[in-house]
Amino acid sequence: MQARRIVLANRPDGVPKETDFRIEDVAVPDLAEGQILIRSRFISVDPGVRGRLGGRTTYAQPLSLGEVIQSANVGVIEASKHPKFAAGNWVAAAYGWQELAISDGRGVRKITETRLPPSTAIGVLGIPGLTAYFGLLEIGQPKVGETVVVSSAAGTVGATAGQIAAIEGARVVGTAGSDAKCVWLTDKLGFASAVNYRTPEDMTAVLKAACPDGIDVLFDNVGDAMIDACLPLMKPFGRIVVSGQIADYNTSAAERPGLKNTSAFIGQRLTMRGLVAFDHYKEFPRAWADLANWIVDGRLKYREDIDDGFERLPSAFVGLFTGANFGRKLVRVG
Amino acid sequence: MQARRIVLANRPDGVPKETDFRIEDVAVPDLAEGQILIRSRFISVDPGVRGRLGGRTTYAQPLSLGEVIQSANVGVIEASKHPKFAAGNWVAAAYGWQELAISDGRGVRKITETRLPPSTAIGVLGIPGLTAYFGLLEIGQPKVGETVVVSSAAGTVGATAGQIAAIEGARVVGTAGSDAKCVWLTDKLGFASAVNYRTPEDMTAVLKAACPDGIDVLFDNVGDAMIDACLPLMKPFGRIVVSGQIADYNTSAAERPGLKNTSAFIGQRLTMRGLVAFDHYKEFPRAWADLANWIVDGRLKYREDIDDGFERLPSAFVGLFTGANFGRKLVRVG
Repeated sequence: MQARRIVLANRPDGVPKETDFRIEDVAVPDLAEGQILIRSRFISVDPGVRGRLGGRTTYAQPLSLGEVIQSANVGVIEASKHPKFAAGNWVAAAYGWQELAISDGRGVRKITETRLPPSTAIGVLGIPGLTAYFGLLEIGQPKVGETVVVSSAAGTVGATAGQIAAIEGARVVGTAGSDAKCVWLTDKLGFASAVNYRTPEDMTAVLKAACPDGIDVLFDNVGDAMIDACLPLMKPFGRIVVSGQIADYNTSAAERPGLKNTSAFIGQRLTMRGLVAFDHYKEFPRAWADLANWIVDGRLKYREDIDDGFERLPSAFVGLFTGANFGRKLVRVG
Repeated sequence: MQARRIVLANRPDGVPKETDFRIEDVAVPDLAEGQILIRSRFISVDPGVRGRLGGRTTYAQPLSLGEVIQSANVGVIEASKHPKFAAGNWVAAAYGWQELAISDGRGVRKITETRLPPSTAIGVLGIPGLTAYFGLLEIGQPKVGETVVVSSAAGTVGATAGQIAAIEGARVVGTAGSDAKCVWLTDKLGFASAVNYRTPEDMTAVLKAACPDGIDVLFDNVGDAMIDACLPLMKPFGRIVVSGQIADYNTSAAERPGLKNTSAFIGQRLTMRGLVAFDHYKEFPRAWADLANWIVDGRLKYREDIDDGFERLPSAFVGLFTGANFGRKLVRVG
């Protein structure tokens, strides 16, 4: 049996291009005892993967050339020689940009949430939703009436974080990359205000107008420039959640503007903390239950942005860095 | 009665000069009921005051021109019409660069620690020691065997923080501005290693050699450049205590190099937090007891660098920014 996979062809110079990836046809071996064969139905397209592609960035151990690009996957068991899985089971896993994968079951989770589409297992109920949940509640800890700013708020992480903050009683202000996204945040998701970050020359001034009392919590998915714009507005004992750094993934440290308004750390006693959702894996069941219940109750909305066809994964990935996506970026396969 | 005070004459352009200050002779009025007259014996010289002098810096609300320069003071009650104070009492207060001060007693604390010289009340038992105590223990939280880096470690804050870390069982590495200070840290204070920060071209490489296992806690008194040099060495779940920013007090945000190695925040799940010791004032009695007991037991050493003569306050302050001091900088008066 043959199947396609997509590997790293070149280390991107700055923003990735489609030609940095290569589609390969590979033979899929027969199943051994204890193994399962998974056929992908949804494959995620994640900005954080940029850090693993190497080039000028220095974040994390890079992939080798020729390695499969990482992702979260939702698929269906096509064949099983594993006692815990049966053909037809929907599962969530993380085996990268591959049409078919053989697994021994480790890290493969049966999807048991039947009230929601299976694609949510790698979106609002996957690492993006869990990042929002733990980042906002464990680090941000918003209190009733506080002001929470969420950057890149139309993405799944940001939209989820902002809505959880609103559920907690905070006043939520978002930034997003288009007027349409801003309208969605305020009209559909309950954000008090939204700022199109492509418009303002002086983000600090624009955010000050949207946050006249200052900022208690910044949930940042963008990077240093956004944090720096917010630092002068942070209130005493403010918290900064470093959730993502999409604006910085394509640059080396030397190329970045850097955080400069750092005197606020002492002046306002700020806390800034970086987050990897997986560190909280023991608490995932509680988070899944909360997130799913909020969705079913209509208090938490999510949006998926789905391209069809395995071969569209590279273009979908490149589009993340131009803000072309609107919602959780997935590619539907087969 | 006449007495001298020192006020802000000009806003410094970058590093302060002695001519930015002016000595004035003022009349001291008679005491009213409920007031005390304090004669200064020791006046502190604090780098953090730079932020209040204005100029290119933007930290905190600046003093007005003509206002008295802020400090901590140790003095003796010269006359009292206040029921809680008597002539001859040694007190600690914060009334700035003045030979004599009239007070209603608020913020004036009788010095009850008789085992140590009264000058320690504004040094190792004052805000510098308390900053070290709460910053290290509440934010840094070093564990036995962890590596703690303390910058500007020969200052009172740094030396105290480093010794507390050693008491807690950590391996402590310091940076200081001269070889003599480095020798003092390793030979007298129990630091495992000390780096002269004026020598290395590549601070990250030098610190990596001193911290082969990486850094668990950075207790920083210097500013962005020091933090940036340490960020690539921080271990998972590392803590950064922003205690002081002496290298940045004389520059505007735009002039600074900025923090650039910020991808470590997510990659290593770092926490960075700024500190103002006074926020912990309810816990001061416990800290005073611990610090004084450690000193009496010989486990905590301190060093004072004392100039004699009220008129030497400006030159002592300017010297802070060239590293001329070695220990808590005080001026002895009268």
